[in-house]
Amino acid sequence: MKLSMLASSMDPVSTFTKVTANEIHQSLSPTHTFSSPPSKPIDVLFVPGGFGCRAELTEAEEFLRARFETCQYLLTVCTGSALSARTGILDGKKATSNKKSFEWVKTQGPKVEWIRKARWVADGRCWTSSGVAAGMDMTLGWVKNVYGGDVAKQTANFIEYEWNEDSEKDRFADLYL
Amino acid sequence: MKLSMLASSMDPVSTFTKVTANEIHQSLSPTHTFSSPPSKPIDVLFVPGGFGCRAELTEAEEFLRARFETCQYLLTVCTGSALSARTGILDGKKATSNKKSFEWVKTQGPKVEWIRKARWVADGRCWTSSGVAAGMDMTLGWVKNVYGGDVAKQTANFIEYEWNEDSEKDRFADLYL
Repeated sequence: MKLSMLASSMDPVSTFTKVTANEIHQSLSPTHTFSSPPSKPIDVLFVPGGFGCRAELTEAEEFLRARFETCQYLLTVCTGSALSARTGILDGKKATSNKKSFEWVKTQGPKVEWIRKARWVADGRCWTSSGVAAGMDMTLGWVKNVYGGDVAKQTANFIEYEWNEDSEKDRFADLYL
Repeated sequence: MKLSMLASSMDPVSTFTKVTANEIHQSLSPTHTFSSPPSKPIDVLFVPGGFGCRAELTEAEEFLRARFETCQYLLTVCTGSALSARTGILDGKKATSNKKSFEWVKTQGPKVEWIRKARWVADGRCWTSSGVAAGMDMTLGWVKNVYGGDVAKQTANFIEYEWNEDSEKDRFADLYL
């Protein structure tokens, strides 16, 4: 398995946001651009979230819409489900998202069946997680689904991660909604 | 507060390692080099871990040794404590590290008082965490110590993180040691 990181250009992509007025951010190097993607098929589309998703990301959205049909799985973290919803690919599907931003997220996909209380939601090949850290729990849930529970447990143990295994347990829905 | 990322050169630094034979890795862009660091004092030295720490990292180690005296805090994640221990700055102090790699870590700092069972250890201004994910719990513990419990809780809640608040609770020590 190989991870490719796609962006509009090959320039480093910063996590900087004007929303939180600090200078705690980092920059990641893409491996490909949306206009020059990997030549092999993309099996898993993994869509991160964050304040960057508040803007229209035309290139990313068009890429997502075009590649969704041929991918095996779509995984989104946090407001990555809002970005995905804007493309229409989540229409008619169950999905979740960041709980503090949930009301805004719902406006981005009026035809999505948004699930208020869930650490993550799996609907067919679409996996969507709640805010930020919930993405780790969802990804391990996906690993369990695809590779089995032992592999998921070993992975969590290897990184000394206390995996929140129950996708329906979501303290943050009640905290924020 | 500002985050600077230091490396030997300004080239992107990859998380690639030959130890795990996959192609799941990413590259981060440094903001400064060890030979041309930020002009302002560094208040907090944050040392990540990973398989890269197995090699001698002369420049990083010399920088760490030189800057430790004037920093307010040293925070290390995973085998970042092994790298730090090699410089001598943890001598005589309590510290912990990745539990799967604990026996190797101990050889890197024979004069360190290594704590077997701890999610993280704080000894004065030196904070060291157990493996990978434990770094998140330690960092929130440090935030609590410096900025107060409310700020730490708000930070964890903001990223929907289920914070493991008890530094002495460590399931992985018994799993691996």
